[in-house]
Amino acid sequence: MSSSALHGIIGYTITPFTAGGLAPDLKALGTSIDRMIESGVHAIAPLGSTGEGAYLSDAEWEQVSEFSIKRVAGRVPTVVSVSDLTTAKAVQRARFAEAQGADVVMVLPASYWKLSDDEILAHYKAIGESISVPIMLYNNPATSGIDMSVSLIMKIVKAVDNVTMVKESTGDIQRMHKLYQLSDGQIPFYNGSNPLALEALTAGAKGWCTAAPNLIPQLNLDLYAAVQNNDLEQARQLFYRQLPLLEFILKGGLPATIKAGLRLTGLEVGDPRLPVSPLNQAGCEQLLQTLKTLNVF
Amino acid sequence: MSSSALHGIIGYTITPFTAGGLAPDLKALGTSIDRMIESGVHAIAPLGSTGEGAYLSDAEWEQVSEFSIKRVAGRVPTVVSVSDLTTAKAVQRARFAEAQGADVVMVLPASYWKLSDDEILAHYKAIGESISVPIMLYNNPATSGIDMSVSLIMKIVKAVDNVTMVKESTGDIQRMHKLYQLSDGQIPFYNGSNPLALEALTAGAKGWCTAAPNLIPQLNLDLYAAVQNNDLEQARQLFYRQLPLLEFILKGGLPATIKAGLRLTGLEVGDPRLPVSPLNQAGCEQLLQTLKTLNVF
Amino acid sequence: MSSSALHGIIGYTITPFTAGGLAPDLKALGTSIDRMIESGVHAIAPLGSTGEGAYLSDAEWEQVSEFSIKRVAGRVPTVVSVSDLTTAKAVQRARFAEAQGADVVMVLPASYWKLSDDEILAHYKAIGESISVPIMLYNNPATSGIDMSVSLIMKIVKAVDNVTMVKESTGDIQRMHKLYQLSDGQIPFYNGSNPLALEALTAGAKGWCTAAPNLIPQLNLDLYAAVQNNDLEQARQLFYRQLPLLEFILKGGLPATIKAGLRLTGLEVGDPRLPVSPLNQAGCEQLLQTLKTLNVF
Amino acid sequence: MSSSALHGIIGYTITPFTAGGLAPDLKALGTSIDRMIESGVHAIAPLGSTGEGAYLSDAEWEQVSEFSIKRVAGRVPTVVSVSDLTTAKAVQRARFAEAQGADVVMVLPASYWKLSDDEILAHYKAIGESISVPIMLYNNPATSGIDMSVSLIMKIVKAVDNVTMVKESTGDIQRMHKLYQLSDGQIPFYNGSNPLALEALTAGAKGWCTAAPNLIPQLNLDLYAAVQNNDLEQARQLFYRQLPLLEFILKGGLPATIKAGLRLTGLEVGDPRLPVSPLNQAGCEQLLQTLKTLNVF
Repeated sequence: MSSSALHGIIGYTITPFTAGGLAPDLKALGTSIDRMIESGVHAIAPLGSTGEGAYLSDAEWEQVSEFSIKRVAGRVPTVVSVSDLTTAKAVQRARFAEAQGADVVMVLPASYWKLSDDEILAHYKAIGESISVPIMLYNNPATSGIDMSVSLIMKIVKAVDNVTMVKESTGDIQRMHKLYQLSDGQIPFYNGSNPLALEALTAGAKGWCTAAPNLIPQLNLDLYAAVQNNDLEQARQLFYRQLPLLEFILKGGLPATIKAGLRLTGLEVGDPRLPVSPLNQAGCEQLLQTLKTLNVF
Repeated sequence: MSSSALHGIIGYTITPFTAGGLAPDLKALGTSIDRMIESGVHAIAPLGSTGEGAYLSDAEWEQVSEFSIKRVAGRVPTVVSVSDLTTAKAVQRARFAEAQGADVVMVLPASYWKLSDDEILAHYKAIGESISVPIMLYNNPATSGIDMSVSLIMKIVKAVDNVTMVKESTGDIQRMHKLYQLSDGQIPFYNGSNPLALEALTAGAKGWCTAAPNLIPQLNLDLYAAVQNNDLEQARQLFYRQLPLLEFILKGGLPATIKAGLRLTGLEVGDPRLPVSPLNQAGCEQLLQTLKTLNVF
Repeated sequence: MSSSALHGIIGYTITPFTAGGLAPDLKALGTSIDRMIESGVHAIAPLGSTGEGAYLSDAEWEQVSEFSIKRVAGRVPTVVSVSDLTTAKAVQRARFAEAQGADVVMVLPASYWKLSDDEILAHYKAIGESISVPIMLYNNPATSGIDMSVSLIMKIVKAVDNVTMVKESTGDIQRMHKLYQLSDGQIPFYNGSNPLALEALTAGAKGWCTAAPNLIPQLNLDLYAAVQNNDLEQARQLFYRQLPLLEFILKGGLPATIKAGLRLTGLEVGDPRLPVSPLNQAGCEQLLQTLKTLNVF
Repeated sequence: MSSSALHGIIGYTITPFTAGGLAPDLKALGTSIDRMIESGVHAIAPLGSTGEGAYLSDAEWEQVSEFSIKRVAGRVPTVVSVSDLTTAKAVQRARFAEAQGADVVMVLPASYWKLSDDEILAHYKAIGESISVPIMLYNNPATSGIDMSVSLIMKIVKAVDNVTMVKESTGDIQRMHKLYQLSDGQIPFYNGSNPLALEALTAGAKGWCTAAPNLIPQLNLDLYAAVQNNDLEQARQLFYRQLPLLEFILKGGLPATIKAGLRLTGLEVGDPRLPVSPLNQAGCEQLLQTLKTLNVF
């Protein structure tokens, strides 16, 4: 795909599990994917942080990856997260996703040992050289333990041909300003921090990668449309309306809160895998109230 | 004044010094104030961080305060910073400023020893009870060493009648979201972080307290107007145009960079007081180029 | 084993790889284990951070675990790290290690999603209930992304019977003071921060978990002995002597520096797995000089 | 004085105030100084953080400085803090202290605007050139807002002849290691972080600057002596004994806790100046119990 084609609301899928967390529940996964596409999201992103990609066995990862791509079936672009601790396995996953038909792969430099800038660059280079589809570079120190500076990101973008998009999840708007400035507005960047949605779009983000459309797709789409329509007042109003939900899912952890929310809407997707706990009773009640306020029910 | 009246571009004055930094140069101060008012700023704020208020003797502080208020002469509102390390002297300065005709006083809880929430609240209470004009609470941990949480700020606003405005300079947009949410949009908040100007106004800030209008008033005013006119595209374009200058003055220190910039425009205002150094030669050349790009000359 | 028996210098093993990082090199692993035991270390700890446990496949992990325990063969206690992202796999590894004869298992709460205190406690409880050997709780936010407070650690120690030892690697000596105070000196704690070796032992640490004895076992043992002999002057002198090496291996990353050092001593153990790079040429030369100064050659 | 002469327990004086905080209470100040000297401390340090030097008017500062030096009267060395926000006033205070007979002046680079390394160096140079007595460089980012790296400190020590001692209050023991390494153990360094007392002396600190000897001089002196006597076990035992008090005075703020403690021992020294509050009732009771446990009464 042309990288300029990826824009708007990019919805993260969860990975439903059968009882006890024993195996992925593909039936529920299919339903959740269909729901998001039918609600109008612009792209689907399986196996990200929300999708508990890091908690799956290799076989499960391939199963969920293949199923998701096939289920989307080109209705919208598919962005598959292929991050892994070792370069070898990240390459293997990137190739697998491409072979199954992914339009874009997303790469977060997962870490145990901190990586130097050279090590991170080599990691992206190795993945880039192994596939032909575009790569969305993903920066999220809160989960990966590695914070890529904007100048390192620009260096990677220049050195690896198919790294053509950047997803920023630090929540620091100045990173987006710097991406815009250093690339003369030419590198498409995407926001991954839910409570920064309004300002990231204001600053020029091309899209918003978010798990929220599992629960409130219309509000997410309306906010994006208001910015596209140059209507700041409308955008601000829509943002403050959905902000309590955005903050809630961030604070409570995306797999736990989104899975609880889907259950509230009638779609049983199981619990997150331990040690991540399901949302507790008080949290579920607060979530229910928040969703009711937003007329989800 | 009605606190709702304070809005828009609130320009910080520098404090010019005579040669060797020996004394305030009131003639140059008067010229710099006139320039900003004539350029169209909505208010004038003397003796803030930019104004080196912390580096003046008590007598100098009173001299600059009285002179500034008289020179503004009601053409626009005057917001005088009265912060001091001791409660006693902050009270004394607040009374002095009110007596001279200040419309608003601004209070940053300066610190040597860290203060508890109770100590900060008592500080604001003591100042509030000693004057009748409204107080703009000012949070800026980078200079004060104290970071007031939004819930502490809300507690102070509720407990002290004339604390009616909040200036936030952390650069963290989520603080503004929380101020908006916790007050149902009723507490006017102002942005004090230059590189956050676009997003703060987007999020609903009522004004922008900045030293930039000493150098680029029209760009600052145009950005504010674009947001008022609900024109996000125009606002974004104006913001990215002035961002290099905003970043430069923040990074180089406001007294040093603004004084160097005024000298480049033909107004000699002396150097900052040591240990703060004047902008070095390389910095002056970079500033000159940046200003030329913005058609200041 | 009685937990009070674990003390002194606890040496971390590396995991040697065959060319290209394809598979563990058990022959070299055996040699490195024998070397450390013959040098006099008080215990052996396989599959920790230094051992690249996080970078192994499940089959490799079991192979290295079984081989290491059998090779130590009870000459000294064996402390096997069984950390994993999911509770299910950490339990499985703990059981495997116990079945193979591990004396102690070490558990770091690895994370992708941040864990609440309750989630961490449940994780330790599940592992504790699945085995009979003692558990060394391990806190190291730099690699795990989770920082356990001393009060959480004490809570876990009280709630899970076989969590009887604590390894602290934050490098913050006040954590050790607090562990000492809250447990009346009854919970044995171990230092995992190399440059804190002198002060941790001064503060009462029962042992030092370190990769350094792969290269300078005698200096490590002498430092421990000096503290045991109540000879502070000798301990200080020994510490400052070995500090440059301790700082070097910490800064350069333990797998890369220890593997390079072993190669310099004539034992080929391969490179770390990518994306972790081997120590570069300049680093190898600096390491060689540092080791020469310490009379390792 | 020869800088090598300054060692051991260096006791900070408080600045007593008359009722309402109106003026320094010199009578109580004299008594508190005599008490500490008679208890055996190795030096007296007036007007530091504990002495509320930052909260005094210029006239008060000179009064307290002159009185303190005269009262010590050479019984032990006097180390006077002369820090101020402007270089001009810091120079003036340094000259004043020297003229009154101070043996050493201590300089913390107080800040409102952050200072560059060059600005900090120039500040020390200006003060150094204006006096003949030695300067103790003081690093304490928690109160000053400026953190001097060890390499900057070494640069200043080399560039300014009479900067011959370093006081480190970050509480980071690695700073002391680096000072020791970079100066081959030749730059005397002093500890200013109370809960680091044991480890700083272990690492080679020449002295401990502390307000604690206002309350527990014998325990402080005994700890220092145990380290001098190479008796680590005794030092550790003494340290853990006094640690609860050391933590209490750090956490509660030195002026508030030390003044409350002196009142408990029968010496009325008034309250800290607002906005710093006196220790509350619960704090006073906890302090009383802690002191009783240490047999102060």
